[in-house]
Amino acid sequence: MSRIVYLNGQWLPEDEAKVSIFDRAFLMGDAIYEVTCVLDGMLLDYPGHAARLRRSAAELGLTLPLDDDALLAAHHEIVARNGMESGMIYLQLSRGVAERDFAYPPAGTEPTLVMFTQAKDVLVNPAAETGISVALVPDLRWGRRDIKTVQLLYPSMAKMEAKAQGADDAWLHEDGFVTEASAATAHIVTAAGTLVTRDLSHALLPGVTRSAILDLAARHGVTVEERAFTPDEARAAREAFITSATNFVVPVVRIDGAQIGDGTPGALTRELRAQYIATRRAAALAPA
Amino acid sequence: MSRIVYLNGQWLPEDEAKVSIFDRAFLMGDAIYEVTCVLDGMLLDYPGHAARLRRSAAELGLTLPLDDDALLAAHHEIVARNGMESGMIYLQLSRGVAERDFAYPPAGTEPTLVMFTQAKDVLVNPAAETGISVALVPDLRWGRRDIKTVQLLYPSMAKMEAKAQGADDAWLHEDGFVTEASAATAHIVTAAGTLVTRDLSHALLPGVTRSAILDLAARHGVTVEERAFTPDEARAAREAFITSATNFVVPVVRIDGAQIGDGTPGALTRELRAQYIATRRAAALAPA
Repeated sequence: MSRIVYLNGQWLPEDEAKVSIFDRAFLMGDAIYEVTCVLDGMLLDYPGHAARLRRSAAELGLTLPLDDDALLAAHHEIVARNGMESGMIYLQLSRGVAERDFAYPPAGTEPTLVMFTQAKDVLVNPAAETGISVALVPDLRWGRRDIKTVQLLYPSMAKMEAKAQGADDAWLHEDGFVTEASAATAHIVTAAGTLVTRDLSHALLPGVTRSAILDLAARHGVTVEERAFTPDEARAAREAFITSATNFVVPVVRIDGAQIGDGTPGALTRELRAQYIATRRAAALAPA
Repeated sequence: MSRIVYLNGQWLPEDEAKVSIFDRAFLMGDAIYEVTCVLDGMLLDYPGHAARLRRSAAELGLTLPLDDDALLAAHHEIVARNGMESGMIYLQLSRGVAERDFAYPPAGTEPTLVMFTQAKDVLVNPAAETGISVALVPDLRWGRRDIKTVQLLYPSMAKMEAKAQGADDAWLHEDGFVTEASAATAHIVTAAGTLVTRDLSHALLPGVTRSAILDLAARHGVTVEERAFTPDEARAAREAFITSATNFVVPVVRIDGAQIGDGTPGALTRELRAQYIATRRAAALAPA
């Protein structure tokens, strides 16, 4: 069945949702995006995603054409129009259609706002049971990864490189430290039981799920260190996992060929996944 | 008057040239491009641009759906259909339309090939007479700038930053050396008369015009050094200029506030511009 997608205020069958070849997202990667998870037809951690979207827009001088109420309403409406119980909402905002030029188009150029859904059972995830393997791949992305732009070619290349190496995903590293997974935050638990997660900077995305997990871990009595960690620390970790909006918490059981712990998902990792799902599900936003 | 543009084998009025919101150029910056200059209705330095396009495609595993003859014919046809005497042809190849995923879509996914023109008088360029000023801006682009991808948000931001500083363009620098201009190759001429141009690597684009200029300079008896140079060397240069497909050679007369030479276009710069235009015009490709 064809999805109904959102394009600049219109609801369209996905096959009819087309943008000009002069859109700056298409020609220059001049766009940002957000992904919000849907469970039970409700929005998970929505305020964090909405806030990060506005931050990304502000960093690039982009204007979101919807106010807070309209943005939330559009998220609920796309869920309803697609009858989606579980999955994700993708939202993208570009600087709009303009004659191609490195200089930004004139103020008042209409931005392009797109939303679409991807249905999937977010609760049933085989990777959460078995864990995944990751390959360490150099991080060649640009210097402002704190802004969630659509310049995703390198994460895409890194994912393909990891697969070529027989791994499920990539952990990126630069200057001797792990930065992120290809599209998720990287975490390790040391032999002493400390949760180590890279501190926020321009080097990585301020993960909404990352923030929730650090908070849950601290409440759980876990010592949390926000600092960069090395590939060697990662390979020697007792547990490792990634977090993202639609995968929640997924155990990592092999890093660059080294088995993590006993090669099965760690106890803290499992606990954090369960806690995250329970607390977010309880606090999910239903339509008004 | 509306342009006629090329989209996947069709010739369309520009307002009708639209692509799916699921195109990977739009969602993930997964696309490459080339720009070829048109003068007297003919193609300048075309073989260099065609070769670089195929190299970019090969680096990313993209397949150009046109063979050499068809690619050349399409370039001539877009000039003819738009009655363009002088300007540029923009060509973009993306990995095509697919459900959004960091993993590449299945082999056999049709790529998206777009071409459009921008008419301009490439010979009459006020900047070539007066020279331009550049601001030094940190280079935050990704690590594979040798591939001509559409991930151009940072060059665009750098251009805007330069303008905010009162300059015409940006020269990017990292690790203590100049890399490139925002969308052109950076060159300096030392007090001793040596032309210094950064050597090729993943840090910069292998400029087609760059290569032609180095060749012309050497034939002109100029000592050419292909090596990275520092911002201090740039500020102390006797002459400076940028090269690109549609601007040819444009003098730089101010770098980060420092006047270059006597503040007017240098003699070698002017000579190289004249030589480039004369030799390329003489060798331009006319339709068969």
